Amino acid sequence: MAQEQKAAKIFGGWNRRYKHTSDVLGCDMTFTVFFPPAATESKPAPVLYFLSGLTCTDENVTTKSGIQRKAAEEGIAIIAPDTSPRGLKIEGDSESWDFGEGAGFYLNATQPKWKQYRMLDYIVKELPSVLKQFKQLDLSKASITGHSMGGHGALTIGLKHPDMYQSISAFSPISNPMNVPWGQKAFSGYLGDDKETWKQYDATELVRKYEGPPRNIIITVGTKDDFLDNQLKPDVFAMAAAGTNVSVDLKLQEGYDHSYFFISSFIDDHVAHAARALKSS
Amino acid sequence: MAQEQKAAKIFGGWNRRYKHTSDVLGCDMTFTVFFPPAATESKPAPVLYFLSGLTCTDENVTTKSGIQRKAAEEGIAIIAPDTSPRGLKIEGDSESWDFGEGAGFYLNATQPKWKQYRMLDYIVKELPSVLKQFKQLDLSKASITGHSMGGHGALTIGLKHPDMYQSISAFSPISNPMNVPWGQKAFSGYLGDDKETWKQYDATELVRKYEGPPRNIIITVGTKDDFLDNQLKPDVFAMAAAGTNVSVDLKLQEGYDHSYFFISSFIDDHVAHAARALKSS
Repeated sequence: MAQEQKAAKIFGGWNRRYKHTSDVLGCDMTFTVFFPPAATESKPAPVLYFLSGLTCTDENVTTKSGIQRKAAEEGIAIIAPDTSPRGLKIEGDSESWDFGEGAGFYLNATQPKWKQYRMLDYIVKELPSVLKQFKQLDLSKASITGHSMGGHGALTIGLKHPDMYQSISAFSPISNPMNVPWGQKAFSGYLGDDKETWKQYDATELVRKYEGPPRNIIITVGTKDDFLDNQLKPDVFAMAAAGTNVSVDLKLQEGYDHSYFFISSFIDDHVAHAARALKSS
Repeated sequence: MAQEQKAAKIFGGWNRRYKHTSDVLGCDMTFTVFFPPAATESKPAPVLYFLSGLTCTDENVTTKSGIQRKAAEEGIAIIAPDTSPRGLKIEGDSESWDFGEGAGFYLNATQPKWKQYRMLDYIVKELPSVLKQFKQLDLSKASITGHSMGGHGALTIGLKHPDMYQSISAFSPISNPMNVPWGQKAFSGYLGDDKETWKQYDATELVRKYEGPPRNIIITVGTKDDFLDNQLKPDVFAMAAAGTNVSVDLKLQEGYDHSYFFISSFIDDHVAHAARALKSS
């Protein structure tokens, strides 16, 4: 059972932060749920997972994006997980801001040293299981989105598990991690040198082989994002999707950067995208 | 001249943070301006000052409240100042979270040790003078609001200078500081023991003697605010306003606390309140 750490009313709903012991990761983990005002046990709310980026916790999106306003209006719950295991004290897990703590990359590590870094299993298996304690959530109706490293997480997890997530979107996602510095550092560290394993966590590789039901994926990126060309490459992903069951709506927003100022400006589009899928499912 | 430190596009406008040397305070000061998309030199935007609470800087409201969304829509610029001088290294200025740095209480100190704490003069004289460098702002049209200690600031400054601010509102304001612990600590420290001086900075005392033009002041407070009864006392202020030119619309919001989750839920009301006054002036 997850234990409530703190709670605050916002836009008529409740932002609640929980802690629980993760068997998958072998440490205590924190996550936040926003319960919209319409969520009740007799009429449980569908959920939208928001996976956060490098260095973030569950609190970045819940304090800076304003996501609760539109989620309250649409009657959608927001699930904000953390970005890595915490407190494992693995040598080197706190030396870099783009590897180790705060940088789990939403994968299951294969290298022995990092074997507890299993954020993929945490997000798709353990967390949904923990969330069952909340009867006011309908976990059978779920969408997924995220930012930067979390955009990578949303794309890869959404494409690998089309049965679990009825829609996918992303802000400024790392879209082809095999071919950019952030991804290469993370993948070699967590997964070793085998490029076939890397492909399982590369959205561009995954979309080429996608055989699930049709998906329209919204990707929003700022044209003044400092990471656009050398780390994100959403255009490479969009090109790879051509001819598959995935259509990509790549929205390039003039003058915006990589920050939560940018995310807050367009968060409504992503909540509405999820709402359309969740309400028709 | 204030120098730009950083800038980000948000809701079609620009959030820009500046640093300048304050002659009044004798230190460098930081503030943020949100320029709405409609602000131009030929059609300058009216401004809404947001004064922040204890421990805050200009960044709390600009990263957590979502104020830019409604301000962009209404075509109003937001001015977010800091809450005290910084870096003066006065003995004891960093020992308490409710006195000294981050806790200037928007007054002009009279005690020699704190003589550089002149946030009232900074807000009503120096900052507007510095802001003149931005030709896309119409500083003759200004409203004022704030939170907690900043709500105290908005009420007292707005009531003392009805010529400068066309409307006033506040979130969870310290409304009768002379009679609560936060106010007594600050006033005795900055102003000494003379209660007549204290009255110049107590909104409840000021409203009783208010002789300016009619003002409708919106005050929004959460019923679950831990500070409501022992530090804020907005009801005492509302009672004192009876029979004056000031009408108080005290909005008690069921279940909300003192946080930015609360502020974000009702910020639109306060921006709209300012917009009504600024557009009719």
